[in-house]
Amino acid sequence: MSPTAVIPPLDAGAQAAAADRLDRLTKPPGSLGRLESIAVQLAGIRGELVTSIDHPAIVVFAGDHGVTRHGVSPYPSSVTRQMVANFLAGGAAVNALARAAEAELVVVDVGVAGAPIEAPPVMPAEGVPSAAVRFVPARVRSGTGDLLTEPAMTRAETEAAIAVGRRVVDELIDAGADLIAVGEMGIGNTTAASALLAALTGREPAEVTGRGTGLDDAGVARKAQLIASAVRRHRPRGEDPLGTLAAVGGLEIAALVGAILAAAEARVPLLLDGFITGAGALVAAGIEPNVPGRLIAAHRSTEPGHRIALESLRLEPILELELRLGEGSGAALAIPIVRAAARILGEMATFEEAAVSNRD
Amino acid sequence: MSPTAVIPPLDAGAQAAAADRLDRLTKPPGSLGRLESIAVQLAGIRGELVTSIDHPAIVVFAGDHGVTRHGVSPYPSSVTRQMVANFLAGGAAVNALARAAEAELVVVDVGVAGAPIEAPPVMPAEGVPSAAVRFVPARVRSGTGDLLTEPAMTRAETEAAIAVGRRVVDELIDAGADLIAVGEMGIGNTTAASALLAALTGREPAEVTGRGTGLDDAGVARKAQLIASAVRRHRPRGEDPLGTLAAVGGLEIAALVGAILAAAEARVPLLLDGFITGAGALVAAGIEPNVPGRLIAAHRSTEPGHRIALESLRLEPILELELRLGEGSGAALAIPIVRAAARILGEMATFEEAAVSNRD
Repeated sequence: MSPTAVIPPLDAGAQAAAADRLDRLTKPPGSLGRLESIAVQLAGIRGELVTSIDHPAIVVFAGDHGVTRHGVSPYPSSVTRQMVANFLAGGAAVNALARAAEAELVVVDVGVAGAPIEAPPVMPAEGVPSAAVRFVPARVRSGTGDLLTEPAMTRAETEAAIAVGRRVVDELIDAGADLIAVGEMGIGNTTAASALLAALTGREPAEVTGRGTGLDDAGVARKAQLIASAVRRHRPRGEDPLGTLAAVGGLEIAALVGAILAAAEARVPLLLDGFITGAGALVAAGIEPNVPGRLIAAHRSTEPGHRIALESLRLEPILELELRLGEGSGAALAIPIVRAAARILGEMATFEEAAVSNRD
Repeated sequence: MSPTAVIPPLDAGAQAAAADRLDRLTKPPGSLGRLESIAVQLAGIRGELVTSIDHPAIVVFAGDHGVTRHGVSPYPSSVTRQMVANFLAGGAAVNALARAAEAELVVVDVGVAGAPIEAPPVMPAEGVPSAAVRFVPARVRSGTGDLLTEPAMTRAETEAAIAVGRRVVDELIDAGADLIAVGEMGIGNTTAASALLAALTGREPAEVTGRGTGLDDAGVARKAQLIASAVRRHRPRGEDPLGTLAAVGGLEIAALVGAILAAAEARVPLLLDGFITGAGALVAAGIEPNVPGRLIAAHRSTEPGHRIALESLRLEPILELELRLGEGSGAALAIPIVRAAARILGEMATFEEAAVSNRD
C-alpha cells in the first residue's frame, strides 16, 4: 500500500492565528515555550483555536505475543490478561493516572490469549464518575503467531485489528472526546515493536532493542538476536508498512495504527505514550505521511528504540521522566500539560485587555 | 549567620517504606521513573507515605527593583503593578495554570512600587471555587534601592520581607495546604537573582546572566557588567546569605526565602518555579542546609543561571519546557505530576492484591 495522503497537512491559517493571539497575551513573546508550540499545533490540527480540552480519553489496547515462548520478557505471558483484569478493577498505574487527569479510560481486548475476558460491571471510582473504566471485547485472535517461525498475523487479521482501533476511536470522538491518548498492554510487545522499527527504518536490531520490562544484559542480547532472525526471515520492507506490521507486529499495535489514523482523519489531537505506541505511529505515518503532525509525543522513555522512533517521526516529547511502563501511563501524565496549553489561549488576557504596558 | 540546622534531613524510614511499597505495586520495579523518586521524596519530607495531594497552593510574591532605572529589562517597572492587577483580575498565565491545576492562588505585595494596591473583591472564577485569587497586602518597602549605588534593602527590611513569606505560608499550611508552589513578579528581578547567584556561588556574572524577559545580546552584556559592578561594590559573601540578600536581592526574593524556610520547617513539600525562586532557594539553603531535600524543582528554564542554581541545590527538574515567564507558571504546571506521584502510592494495587504474577 502506498501513501494515500487523505490526511491534509496542518491548517497554516489556524496556526498563524494561534501564534498571533499568543503574542498578544500578557507575557513576553515565547516565554511559555513548549506550551505555546503545543497551542499552535492544536490549532493546526483542529483548524481553529483550541481554548480548552474538555473530554480527554485514554484507550489501552491489549494483545498477546507468540514470541514470548522464547523468553523475551521476565514476566509470563499470562500477565497480559491479569493486567487487563487489574485495569478493569481500577488498580493499575494507568487507572490512577487517568483519574488524576480526569480522563475516560477504555480498555480493549484486541488479541489477548486464553478464554474470553469477562467484563465486570462498570463501577465508577469513588466520587469520580469520569474515572469509570469501559471494556471493549473485540478480540481478533488470541495472541499472535511466533514471529520467529511464522507471520505474527495474516493480512486479514491485521486489517481487522486496525479496524478495531478505528472503531473505538471513532466512537469516542462521536461521543465528544477532544483528545485521544493511547496505550497498550502486551507481554512481549517491545520485541514486536523493535522488530517493526528495525524493519521500517533499516536500523540494526541491536540499536533498537532494550530491556523491556527488565531484561538483564544477556537477555537484551538474546532478544536482539531473535529480532534479527525475525527480520531476516520475513524480509519486511519499509515501503509496505501493512505487510511489515502483519509479519512482525502485534494485534494491539495494529489497533494502535487504526486508532492513530482515525484520530488524525477526525482532526482530533492524539497523545502517544511510549515505545510501542511510537512504533504504531511509524506504521501509520507509512500509510499516511501527514499523520505525525497530528500527534503529540507525551514522553520519551528509557527504551532506546523510543528515541529512534520519535526522531523518525520528528516529534519532540513533552516529558522525560525515565518512564518505561506503557499502559498509556506517560500519555496520561501529559494530558494536564496539553490541557494547560489550550487554557492559556482560552483564558489569558491580552496586553490591551489587561491594560499592561507592552515592551518598549 | 551560620547554618542552624533546625531542619532535619529527610525521614529515611518513611522513604524506605515508600520504596518498598512502590516495588510491590503492579508494574516492573522502577518503571514509573521520576514519579517513583518523587513519591519517595514526599514520604521523606512528610515522615509518612503521601498518598494524595489535596490542597495545593501557589503563592506569588511581587516586588520592584531600583536597578530597573538602568534599563535591565525591555519592560517598564510599572508592569510589576499592572501584572499584579492582572493576577487579581484572573487574566495572567498563572491564573489559567492555577485553575487548570485546581490550586489556590495567593498574590502578595511585599514590595511593589507606587501607591498601595487596592484589592478587588474576591471573585471565584466561573464554576471553580478554588480558583479564587487571594490578595495579601504586606508591603515592606515600595521597591528596592538601586543595587549599583546602595544596598537593595536594609537588614531590617530583609528580615521583615522574610517574615512576610513565612507568615503567608504558615497560614496556608494551617488552613490545610499540603503542597506549596512559589512564584514571583518583579520587573528587574533576574538582575537581582543573577547578582545573588554570582555572589553566593562565586560564578562569573557573565555565566549567570541571561535575557530575562527578552534582552538582546547587547542588553545581556550590559546587564552582566551592571551585575559585576554591583558584586564588586557590595563584596557580598556566600557565608553571609542574609547580608548578600540585603545587598543585591529583592523584597520578593526575601519573601521567597521565608516561604521556603516555613514550608521546610513544617515538612510540607515546596515546588520551586524558575530562576528567581531558585536564587531564593540558594539563600534558604545557606541558612538551613537541609532545605534542598524538601524542595521539588518544577522545571528548568532557559535562563542560564537557573541551571547553575539547580546544580548548586542538587535538584533535578521535573519539566524542561523552555519556559521563561516566572509568576509560578512552571510550578503550577508541575503540580499534576507531583499529585500523580502521590496517587500512584495511594491508589495502585500490589501484585498480591490484584493476583498478577510477578517476574520469574
